[in-house]
Amino acid sequence: MQNFTFCNPTKILFGKGRIQDLAKEIPAGQRVLVTYGGGSALANGTLGEVREALRHAVVTEFGGIEPNPSYETLCKAVKLARETGAEFLLAVGGGSVMDGTKFIAAAVPFTGEDPWDLVTRKAPVKAALPFGTVLTMPATGSEMNSGAVITRRSIGAKLPFGSPLLFPRFSVLDPEKTYSLPPRQIGNGIVDAFVHTVEQYLTYPADAPMQDEFSEGILRTLIRVGPRTLAEPENYEARAAFVWAATLALNGLIGAGVPQDWATHMIGHELTALHGLDHAQSLAVVLPAMLEERFEAKKAKLVQYADRVWGLESPAEAIEATRTFFESLGVKTRLKDYGVSPDAIPALLEALKTHGMTALGERRDVTLEVSRRVLERAL
Amino acid sequence: MQNFTFCNPTKILFGKGRIQDLAKEIPAGQRVLVTYGGGSALANGTLGEVREALRHAVVTEFGGIEPNPSYETLCKAVKLARETGAEFLLAVGGGSVMDGTKFIAAAVPFTGEDPWDLVTRKAPVKAALPFGTVLTMPATGSEMNSGAVITRRSIGAKLPFGSPLLFPRFSVLDPEKTYSLPPRQIGNGIVDAFVHTVEQYLTYPADAPMQDEFSEGILRTLIRVGPRTLAEPENYEARAAFVWAATLALNGLIGAGVPQDWATHMIGHELTALHGLDHAQSLAVVLPAMLEERFEAKKAKLVQYADRVWGLESPAEAIEATRTFFESLGVKTRLKDYGVSPDAIPALLEALKTHGMTALGERRDVTLEVSRRVLERAL
Repeated sequence: MQNFTFCNPTKILFGKGRIQDLAKEIPAGQRVLVTYGGGSALANGTLGEVREALRHAVVTEFGGIEPNPSYETLCKAVKLARETGAEFLLAVGGGSVMDGTKFIAAAVPFTGEDPWDLVTRKAPVKAALPFGTVLTMPATGSEMNSGAVITRRSIGAKLPFGSPLLFPRFSVLDPEKTYSLPPRQIGNGIVDAFVHTVEQYLTYPADAPMQDEFSEGILRTLIRVGPRTLAEPENYEARAAFVWAATLALNGLIGAGVPQDWATHMIGHELTALHGLDHAQSLAVVLPAMLEERFEAKKAKLVQYADRVWGLESPAEAIEATRTFFESLGVKTRLKDYGVSPDAIPALLEALKTHGMTALGERRDVTLEVSRRVLERAL
Repeated sequence: MQNFTFCNPTKILFGKGRIQDLAKEIPAGQRVLVTYGGGSALANGTLGEVREALRHAVVTEFGGIEPNPSYETLCKAVKLARETGAEFLLAVGGGSVMDGTKFIAAAVPFTGEDPWDLVTRKAPVKAALPFGTVLTMPATGSEMNSGAVITRRSIGAKLPFGSPLLFPRFSVLDPEKTYSLPPRQIGNGIVDAFVHTVEQYLTYPADAPMQDEFSEGILRTLIRVGPRTLAEPENYEARAAFVWAATLALNGLIGAGVPQDWATHMIGHELTALHGLDHAQSLAVVLPAMLEERFEAKKAKLVQYADRVWGLESPAEAIEATRTFFESLGVKTRLKDYGVSPDAIPALLEALKTHGMTALGERRDVTLEVSRRVLERAL
């Protein structure tokens, strides 16, 4: 096991009816900026419940944070937070709203010229407004970690950033608040959580049996409850298991003390930025191709993955089972399914190069040439 | 899954050489009371390393916290902490030193007459000195939770207490610092972590697949690495896996959202208080008897335990495998092995009654009569 530091102070409020506990977490009279996305939180009643729970606070609202939250939109929220003297932020939504709110939290007290510097790491995050979240879409794990991915549309960039100051103070996880999500978002969410886990697990053996056991447990749970929660969106038990699995997939625990990959994510980000694939779609396309391309480098762990996660002897069959699983969730796994043709590859590689993504993976040996072969396999 | 609230803010510093990071966690000039036990932390050099790392702090030391830390001893430490104006406590030891330090942390700012009221819950914990830990013995999980068990020898009582204010700020987990432990303490530690997990897992099905997966992962890991770390105390990888498994067994995660038992612990506490069994010895005696006695009530989970943890079809065989596992670690599983005869049972039941332990277990149906049968089965 590698040395590691692990600290995750986010308080999880899990279960039915937990939105009413917001009143205990946010003191009366506090100036709160509630952030949300495209209106589904309003339509399904979650935002109304939040307003009711916060009736003793001074609430301003900022809606319209889009999927793959953009610097451009978020800067408007930063301006509003400053104007209203917000003391606390409350993100009501999925990964995009939560990620965007992390940027807002860091940008409001930022005294430099351009808060984009926080994303490019030119400037460190030295302070952040406290914030909480109310989850309406399980998948990204953002409700229990300190990272975010921000897109700057004007320059076609999608970059990860984070800081230990950016853990939510609390997150409300009420599985019922996710019932109204369309199947596409649930399918995406299952793939997203699955690939988060694989990025931290499917590398090389590192004498970390607890981390392996926990990762395999998450993967098996997603395989078991994923199809059920897709088919029966109001089956509380299946949805609750999915929500909790997705949170555990990216709260830092399974990745502590082990090598991590994340090459699939980095290539996927370019597909989203240049071709508009949903985040999970990009992962479903890249992961099977990545595992095929890096078969020998990952073989020891692929054998373990095949055996313990899929009950298969053959690692090649486990990769195929992974692809079939994603497809069964309604998430296509080929570039051509999304209208991306071979001639798009040079621009994708150029974008990777521009963003410094020329040595990816757990051994930093996923060069641009390897990424090119991965994309070719994904056609 | 049941509704739950989970929050564990303890920062884990895991791995070789992490004691030197104490200097980053405790500001220079701070007045620190370092607590430790019977001298093994001194003999094996851990205390020396701690002193070196804290050379910029103002350090006072309090040694002699005994196994099953006593109110009587701890009150002396509280007096010393007050006299020296301690601003931070640092526990260097195993569960007893850490548990004892939690009591000291709560008792120092306590303004009532008798800090024992904190243990009996007559008085709530309203404030606590901040504290960290340096682990020298894996087992109890105290390094990453907010609970403790305190003994008051004068009245033969051993009681659990805790507060969200009693999480360590940080815990240093360097597996190498546990190499010098005698086999008895390692065997005990493996049993302790195993039974902690079972108490949160082996109840009744609760539609909590993640919690089941994580618990089963801990149990399998203890079964795999336990014998190895006992046989090869300086095998870093085996010891590191054991240390991390033991921490995860009782940091609140696997017990969140599921029914919990703890009847074995409560009966075990009386065996320790009245007959001096090591904590883990008491658990090794009570657990197999408890599982036999409550076979029907726990049958669904016992079948799952047999299958997933032991690869066995028969739950009765899984109980027998559990007993054999404990014995293989050098921890005896019968009362007679510790010189406790049938005529000791009435006093044990009387002690349970005195401490209000008359309705134990996940369904609160472990009455004194059931406890009597458990003890008889354990003879």
